[in-house]
Amino acid sequence: MKVGFYQFRPQFGKIAANTKKIIKTLDKIDADLIVLPELALSGYYFKDDKEALSLAEDPNHSTNIDSIINLCRDNRIHIVIGFAEKAKDKCFNSSALIGPQGIIHIYRKLHLFNEEKFCMSPGDVPLKVNEVNGVKLGMMVCFDWAFPEVTRTLAMNDAEIICHPSNLVLNFCQQTMLARCLENRVFAITANRFGSDNRPHGSLRFTGKSQIVSPKGELIFRAASQREACYITEINPTESHDKFITKHNNLFSDRRPNFYEL
Amino acid sequence: MKVGFYQFRPQFGKIAANTKKIIKTLDKIDADLIVLPELALSGYYFKDDKEALSLAEDPNHSTNIDSIINLCRDNRIHIVIGFAEKAKDKCFNSSALIGPQGIIHIYRKLHLFNEEKFCMSPGDVPLKVNEVNGVKLGMMVCFDWAFPEVTRTLAMNDAEIICHPSNLVLNFCQQTMLARCLENRVFAITANRFGSDNRPHGSLRFTGKSQIVSPKGELIFRAASQREACYITEINPTESHDKFITKHNNLFSDRRPNFYEL
Repeated sequence: MKVGFYQFRPQFGKIAANTKKIIKTLDKIDADLIVLPELALSGYYFKDDKEALSLAEDPNHSTNIDSIINLCRDNRIHIVIGFAEKAKDKCFNSSALIGPQGIIHIYRKLHLFNEEKFCMSPGDVPLKVNEVNGVKLGMMVCFDWAFPEVTRTLAMNDAEIICHPSNLVLNFCQQTMLARCLENRVFAITANRFGSDNRPHGSLRFTGKSQIVSPKGELIFRAASQREACYITEINPTESHDKFITKHNNLFSDRRPNFYEL
Repeated sequence: MKVGFYQFRPQFGKIAANTKKIIKTLDKIDADLIVLPELALSGYYFKDDKEALSLAEDPNHSTNIDSIINLCRDNRIHIVIGFAEKAKDKCFNSSALIGPQGIIHIYRKLHLFNEEKFCMSPGDVPLKVNEVNGVKLGMMVCFDWAFPEVTRTLAMNDAEIICHPSNLVLNFCQQTMLARCLENRVFAITANRFGSDNRPHGSLRFTGKSQIVSPKGELIFRAASQREACYITEINPTESHDKFITKHNNLFSDRRPNFYEL
């Protein structure tokens, strides 16, 4: 299975241009699954909830999302993309799993980061694992990394690959994802953006370093911090089935949930 | 508060000599809390359950534990020490919190590592936080690091410092403990041993690199791999009270337990 990510620099508010850039890069690509950053269509640093909603997509009526679906259909690929999701008067920080047949699943970020709390609504749907061509994919978004319960929940629901669209501004996530993969024996694809959102109300700089980690907690590849990167590699998702970290230690069946107070 | 660890090389089966070595090093030390390795009195690599039990201490009738209590009393310090605990016909891989007044609490390792499963019984007491001179201490032992639920449970019970006696043979723990401290905003003192247990049934080499990590996931100090190290530093345990990783993100109150399936 050929998996990868596309680390790029979305331009704030230029949804059509960002969509076009994604399509230009990924058209004719030889891959099965590509993960894109969080809020890849709109950019990140909204002023307030009104602005977020004005730049959000209703996935059922979005020419931009439709373009991504067409990209998947034309190239027979699957894409995970972060986007601002308009749902009536609410805006969610969402991640869509899209395939040739259309949108397969939308996950709404459970743990909003910092000022996102003033612009978007917290996720209200369960963490879910979707099977695509026999491979089980989980989604989480950016700051969800800080809560070990998220990857744990996805892995205990048999996720083989964690797809992780991100717009990281802190430096902790990349290293912590090695622990998340090791403790759950799953693959993770963290697709981060780079560059800055320079807005009248402030500026945010993103840390790049998108990466793919193996179920043994090994870094397969990490991109540069401030450089565009489209990286694809071949992995065997079934490596995630082996939950044994030693001959006698299965990291899942060794759990002692009666002693956990969570 | 002055805290630290003593990384040394216990000699297998030489309980009196190991006890003497600990006392010689820690007598007259200027510290409030010292963490010692797992199975610091007996050594690690037992042949079977019979051998483990023969080298275990009944904490209520142990001249060796009594010597450690005297050490605490004479120096007005607290010690966390890993030891093989004899309880009737069972042997637990335990950690004792000992102070001038005696044993304060014994934790029995919940997650046994590899062949330990054939030599010792899995822990059967809850994870517990004990207050000592106003500071809240949690204990976990070695391989418990692989289960994020352990540190989480202790931190959610207000632990400020995680005391972590270890006999590590893998290389993952030290780095992963940075994630554990960061995600829970607690201090952790991992006291590992070095050297090897060379036994007729096999040899095991331990990885040293004992360390202290801050609630921000920063490495305060890490010892060398194969060298004795008694390290003490001053910390402010109340730093662990600040669970905010950004202005608007409290890592505990931001949790979404209704969405975790654990």
